[in-house]
Amino acid sequence: MPNKGRQLFITQTVEFSAAHRLSRADYSEEENRRVFGKCANPNGHGHNYRLEATFKGEPDPDTGMVIHFDRLKQMLGEIVLDPLDHKHLNFDVPFLQGVLPSSENLVIALWKEINRAIGQETYCLHQLSLWSSDRHRVDYFGEAPDESPT
Amino acid sequence: MPNKGRQLFITQTVEFSAAHRLSRADYSEEENRRVFGKCANPNGHGHNYRLEATFKGEPDPDTGMVIHFDRLKQMLGEIVLDPLDHKHLNFDVPFLQGVLPSSENLVIALWKEINRAIGQETYCLHQLSLWSSDRHRVDYFGEAPDESPT
Amino acid sequence: MPNKGRQLFITQTVEFSAAHRLSRADYSEEENRRVFGKCANPNGHGHNYRLEATFKGEPDPDTGMVIHFDRLKQMLGEIVLDPLDHKHLNFDVPFLQGVLPSSENLVIALWKEINRAIGQETYCLHQLSLWSSDRHRVDYFGEAPDESPT
Amino acid sequence: MPNKGRQLFITQTVEFSAAHRLSRADYSEEENRRVFGKCANPNGHGHNYRLEATFKGEPDPDTGMVIHFDRLKQMLGEIVLDPLDHKHLNFDVPFLQGVLPSSENLVIALWKEINRAIGQETYCLHQLSLWSSDRHRVDYFGEAPDESPT
Amino acid sequence: MPNKGRQLFITQTVEFSAAHRLSRADYSEEENRRVFGKCANPNGHGHNYRLEATFKGEPDPDTGMVIHFDRLKQMLGEIVLDPLDHKHLNFDVPFLQGVLPSSENLVIALWKEINRAIGQETYCLHQLSLWSSDRHRVDYFGEAPDESPT
Amino acid sequence: MPNKGRQLFITQTVEFSAAHRLSRADYSEEENRRVFGKCANPNGHGHNYRLEATFKGEPDPDTGMVIHFDRLKQMLGEIVLDPLDHKHLNFDVPFLQGVLPSSENLVIALWKEINRAIGQETYCLHQLSLWSSDRHRVDYFGEAPDESPT
Repeated sequence: MPNKGRQLFITQTVEFSAAHRLSRADYSEEENRRVFGKCANPNGHGHNYRLEATFKGEPDPDTGMVIHFDRLKQMLGEIVLDPLDHKHLNFDVPFLQGVLPSSENLVIALWKEINRAIGQETYCLHQLSLWSSDRHRVDYFGEAPDESPT
Repeated sequence: MPNKGRQLFITQTVEFSAAHRLSRADYSEEENRRVFGKCANPNGHGHNYRLEATFKGEPDPDTGMVIHFDRLKQMLGEIVLDPLDHKHLNFDVPFLQGVLPSSENLVIALWKEINRAIGQETYCLHQLSLWSSDRHRVDYFGEAPDESPT
Repeated sequence: MPNKGRQLFITQTVEFSAAHRLSRADYSEEENRRVFGKCANPNGHGHNYRLEATFKGEPDPDTGMVIHFDRLKQMLGEIVLDPLDHKHLNFDVPFLQGVLPSSENLVIALWKEINRAIGQETYCLHQLSLWSSDRHRVDYFGEAPDESPT
Repeated sequence: MPNKGRQLFITQTVEFSAAHRLSRADYSEEENRRVFGKCANPNGHGHNYRLEATFKGEPDPDTGMVIHFDRLKQMLGEIVLDPLDHKHLNFDVPFLQGVLPSSENLVIALWKEINRAIGQETYCLHQLSLWSSDRHRVDYFGEAPDESPT
Repeated sequence: MPNKGRQLFITQTVEFSAAHRLSRADYSEEENRRVFGKCANPNGHGHNYRLEATFKGEPDPDTGMVIHFDRLKQMLGEIVLDPLDHKHLNFDVPFLQGVLPSSENLVIALWKEINRAIGQETYCLHQLSLWSSDRHRVDYFGEAPDESPT
Repeated sequence: MPNKGRQLFITQTVEFSAAHRLSRADYSEEENRRVFGKCANPNGHGHNYRLEATFKGEPDPDTGMVIHFDRLKQMLGEIVLDPLDHKHLNFDVPFLQGVLPSSENLVIALWKEINRAIGQETYCLHQLSLWSSDRHRVDYFGEAPDESPT
């Protein structure tokens, strides 16, 4: 039973292009500009986002794989690309309704979506890294047991 | 007089994040979707664009440079980044008024803007390459003398 | 009629993973090793290839596009990815039968395949660049009129 | 004694090109295709692999270095590049005999090889990350004490 | 109070170009060459460095952000780029006086500078990664409580 | 005689780390700072340079190759890396004696060195591209016949 009990981390990357605007309706234009900077531009702007999704599990002793990357690509295509690619994050995405689409809130929302999609599997979601440019990234590891909101 | 008469090509890269939508008001929703695909999403989408601007000239015999890259960065900051970064190309950009903001039209408009900015210099604009993603690029070399529109 | 007569160059990139071996049946093992180096390893080796296909044309005055990148992606998917991705270039590819699969010969063969696929269009194939690693690339511009083999 | 007691993590990257095939002799062709997808192509395929090896240690108070990168490059050249570059992972690699060469199994095998090579040093192997493409990666941190196979 | 209690990791990247030399005045030329290899070249050499600075915190419930990246860019510009970009690390940098400018020592010094700059904030510095080339990186997570030098 | 008469362009990339300073002894400190900006920092600075060397030729009908990339790597190692890597361009490089080491002058000097090294071959040097950062590049195609200095 080779390699049983070994934990491995499998990362699959997907890319999507989307528009968003950071602002609050209860802020004045000046307040939005002060808090969100150029991200508050009223007509919005956009990014090529890159999401790295990391899954943790043991390799199957028969196949040597934790999970075939074709399954990851298919799942991330349905959960991430279909609702987000070439969309406006403030208006077009069901799981972002009522959410200010910062990278932080987006990565938390994606965590829930991906976690629900993998359901009961032999592997689990371990980390999400969301790049909004080659120079800026947000990482999320899910809620720690002692960090759950009240 | 070392290196006199030698032509060199200097490329400076700038990056900006912008939203856009490809559609025509005189097309139906179906027609826009058929012609422009997911780029016609009514609420728009966005990209991290990368522009490579290439200038041609001879190195100055005293300084060994065609042009200091600080001047290129300053000029491209004013001509490209200020009007385009974190903006919506369909609404926010004076030199794109009335222009469908495809990569092709954007690179042609940028050619005119940059050419006007450099004016009478010892170097000239040679090529613009505009990446809308790591996998898609549009190159433009300006109008050939025999290609000018009538 | 905006932007009529202007030539633009559109580049779309695709990636595929393939095995190959460089050797000749009429060479001895030593000769193959001397000529092809480690590329002659008898069991073969492999690469992640990246192909940049550049097309030349005028933007359509109505759409501002030379060609929608979805059409390029679909065409290159059928012509390049389907026959080459996760294949062995010495054995699995119909249009490489009898061809030593060097990068040079591969890019020439791809030129013919892509040219046949686009047929009579308003744009034409201008350049193919084939990367076999981040450090090695072969570019091809087709046969010049005065370079046709006899 | 500056910086004593501080833990640092040094990562060196190497790249190799190799062929492999994922399949089992006790599976039918259909079963291999179903389980391994296009990775089961009978003639094999290949990749440019990138291995990031991370070592943990304290900087030497005299030299300010944990380990000179020339030593890492030399060691990884002998342990990783010599046996793997331009080879077929199913046939050519002594330490992969009898191992299905998935990325998961390859990274576990490399962990053992590198660990044996560094022996008793002031630093230790901390992480291996193996990219088989720009979009897919496997990370391994070795066996946790409570994870050793029985 | 959405997303309260969730820990996120924000990474901002900056790049600088600098010269350095690795050598000790109390070593002979031969000893420096033996210990530091080509990094001991008497006239020095240089790199394009890339620093990834990762900060840990909770998103503000009102803004959805841990910290606006404009503030990170401004802070890293003052703390990292102003003293280091286009400088010689052995001579020009106040906070490196008397420090052998290896990547290891540089990343430890930068940790102190950045930590002092952020002061009492709702987020904290979590990790610094310093690339001296695309193939070599040093990571630092600060001093563990039980690792403080005596 | 397959593929005879077809011109292909082979590009090999090498990387080196070097220090330099841009200044003139006959300029005052202020003048150097004004003309060369932060590149005039008296103690110098440095870069990771990337050189892409492009060669033009016909594939050998027997081998399908214009030139084996191992020969290019060996030649560029001797001509480019040995004299330049981990060196100071103002002091350490024989073929840069008396030359202000701007990217422009460096690429012109490298053209002469590489051209001399290939001598009488079936291929010729076509283009050199020198990146001093991911955002700045100088291209050189050699002297046009009508551009030779007098």
